Amino acid sequence: MKQYKVGLVGIGAVGTEMIKVLRQRKFPASEIRILATRERDEVVAGETFHVLEAKPEAFDGLDIVLFAGTEGSKGASKLFGWEAVKRGCVVIDNGDDYRMDDRVPLVIPEINPEALDKHQGFIANPNCSTIITLMGIAPLHQRVPLRHMTAVTFQSVSGTGRSAIEELEQQVRDYAAGKELTVKAYPHQIAFNVLPQIGSPKKELPGFTTEEAKMTFESRKILGVPDLRVASTCVRVPVFYAHSVAVHAEFSAPLTPEHAREILGTAPGVKVIDDLTSSQYPMPLFIGGGDDVGVGRIRVDPSVENGLALWCCGDNIRKGAAQNAVQIAEEMIRRKLI
Amino acid sequence: MKQYKVGLVGIGAVGTEMIKVLRQRKFPASEIRILATRERDEVVAGETFHVLEAKPEAFDGLDIVLFAGTEGSKGASKLFGWEAVKRGCVVIDNGDDYRMDDRVPLVIPEINPEALDKHQGFIANPNCSTIITLMGIAPLHQRVPLRHMTAVTFQSVSGTGRSAIEELEQQVRDYAAGKELTVKAYPHQIAFNVLPQIGSPKKELPGFTTEEAKMTFESRKILGVPDLRVASTCVRVPVFYAHSVAVHAEFSAPLTPEHAREILGTAPGVKVIDDLTSSQYPMPLFIGGGDDVGVGRIRVDPSVENGLALWCCGDNIRKGAAQNAVQIAEEMIRRKLI
Repeated sequence: MKQYKVGLVGIGAVGTEMIKVLRQRKFPASEIRILATRERDEVVAGETFHVLEAKPEAFDGLDIVLFAGTEGSKGASKLFGWEAVKRGCVVIDNGDDYRMDDRVPLVIPEINPEALDKHQGFIANPNCSTIITLMGIAPLHQRVPLRHMTAVTFQSVSGTGRSAIEELEQQVRDYAAGKELTVKAYPHQIAFNVLPQIGSPKKELPGFTTEEAKMTFESRKILGVPDLRVASTCVRVPVFYAHSVAVHAEFSAPLTPEHAREILGTAPGVKVIDDLTSSQYPMPLFIGGGDDVGVGRIRVDPSVENGLALWCCGDNIRKGAAQNAVQIAEEMIRRKLI
Repeated sequence: MKQYKVGLVGIGAVGTEMIKVLRQRKFPASEIRILATRERDEVVAGETFHVLEAKPEAFDGLDIVLFAGTEGSKGASKLFGWEAVKRGCVVIDNGDDYRMDDRVPLVIPEINPEALDKHQGFIANPNCSTIITLMGIAPLHQRVPLRHMTAVTFQSVSGTGRSAIEELEQQVRDYAAGKELTVKAYPHQIAFNVLPQIGSPKKELPGFTTEEAKMTFESRKILGVPDLRVASTCVRVPVFYAHSVAVHAEFSAPLTPEHAREILGTAPGVKVIDDLTSSQYPMPLFIGGGDDVGVGRIRVDPSVENGLALWCCGDNIRKGAAQNAVQIAEEMIRRKLI
C-alpha cells in the first residue's frame, strides 16, 4: 500500500485529535510532520514529535497537509495554504477562510465525495455544527429534497478550544469550592449558563452570528442547493464534548419517521438512537469520543407541510473536525486523487 | 384595601417561591394557609407556618387557593381543586391537569387577562416554557398575527423541582471531587450533558413529549388561535434557574426587528436585551431570580416569508410559575372578580 507524507499545522484540540485519528484509523502515513509557530520537541497524543517552524520550505516533500485551524488559531492556512499547494501538497483545511471559495470543495465524505474530483489541491473541512446537522439531514435530502430547515444548536466548549474546556472545568471546580468564578474564554460565565452567541456578528446576514451564517451558506454548498432556505440559532452550553442540534425540516414530499429511520439506519457514519419511551436518544455525554453522528427524536413535524423534526448529536472535535478531515484524505486516496 | 385569605397547596420549589412572591409584591393577604400531605410546623421562605393537612374542610373560608403542583407533586388540584371551588374559593392551579379544560381559563395576565372574566372559579397557570415563549411572541402577534412558530427550549433543572436542583449540584461536586456521579432525578446524567426529553411521550402528538405538546396546545388556547401551527423540541440543560427559548416565527405580514424591539420595549413584563455586537442578550444565569422575561437576538429570519427569530429567557419558577399565578390573583382583584 502506498504511504503518504502527512503534514499537520497546529496542535490545539483539533490538531491533537488529528494525530489520534490518523493513528486509530491506521492512516498510511510514512511521516507525520508537525508544523507550528516555533521549532521544539513536543509530546502530542502520547508521541514525541520534533515540531518544525511553519514556513514555506517546511512543506516541501509533503503529500497531504492538514491545517487544524479552529476559532482560536486562524491564519495559518491563509499564510501557507496555497503556498503548500504550489509545492505539491494537497491541503485539507479545517479553518473557515476558504470554505466558500469557488476553487475549494467543501466536503463531508459520506455526503458529497464527488466534489473532490475537481479539486485544485485545496479542500475545506466544513464547520462542526454544519457537519453534524447534515450527517442527519443529507441522507434524507438525497431521497426527498429538503426545502427548508431550522437548526438550533447546543454546542460544547471544546469547539472553542482547550482554553474553554479548561475554563468550564475551572469554573465548576471553583463553584464546588465556593470560590469566585473567573471568566475569560467567553464574554460571560459558561458554567450553569447558556450563551446564545457563537462567533461574531455576520455582516452579510444581519442579526446572525458567523456560526449561524456557516450553517446557511455551507449547507447550501455541500448539498448543492444554492437557494436552500436555512436558518439557525447557535448556542453554547456547559458541555465539554459533542454538539447537539434540534432540526425542524420541511421536505418536498412526505417522509415518514419510519422511512427516515430506515434511510438513516443504513447511512454511513450515522447511528439511529431513537426510542423515546425508554429515553433513548443521542446525548453529548455519550456521543463524545465516538465516530458516528447519532440521530434520534425522529418525528413528523405537523406544523409544516412534509415536516420532520429530529435531533443530531456528534463529537465536534472528531466528526466535526479532525475525523472528517482525515476521512477526506482517505476518500481522496480511494478516488486516486492523491 | 380589601384583604384576602390565601391558601397554598404544596411547598416544593414553586410553592416556596409563591410565598416569596406574595410577600415581595405585598399581596393583600390577611392569612396564608399552607396545606400539604400532613399537619406540621415548617419554615417556608423564612417564615414559620403551621401547615395543615389538605382535606376538603381545610379550604373553608379561603378566598383564593394557589395549587403549586409541578411535575413532581401532581394530583392535589385533581383531588381538591373543584371541591375548593364548591366551598367558595377561587382556585389558581399551576399543575397541568385542567389547562386544556374548556371551563378553565389559561392565563398570562400581560397577554390574555380578559379570559378571566368568564371564569368558573378555577383558573390554570400555563406551563413555564409556554409562558416564557409567549411573553416574547404574544405582543408581536397582537400587532401582526403569528402564522407559525418553532420553539426550541433550553430548560433548567429547577423545572423538575428541588431534587433535580440538588442532583445537578451534587453531580458537579462529585465531579470536582473525582467521585462517581449518581443519577436519580433524570434517566441520564445532567451535568455536562443535555437531555432532549422533558416529560413523557404524548399520545396525541406522536413522537413529541408532553412538554412539547404543551407548547403547541397551550399557545393555541392562550393566543385564541385554535389552529396555530406550533412545533417544539424541549431540552433539559445543566442550568439551575431560568429557561431559554430559541424561537423562529412566521408572521402574516412583515415585521422588522426595529418594530419588534419597539413593541417589546413597551410590553409589560418584557425586557429587551439585544446588542449582539457587545454580547448583550438575555441569559439564564442573569435572568434567574428576576421578574421580567428577557428578549434578544431579534432578527429577520430570511428563510421564511415574514420571518423573525428571537431568544426569550425567563425564570421558570417565578414568571414561569409562582409569579404568574400571583399575578393572576392580582388581575382578578383588579377586575373585581374576587
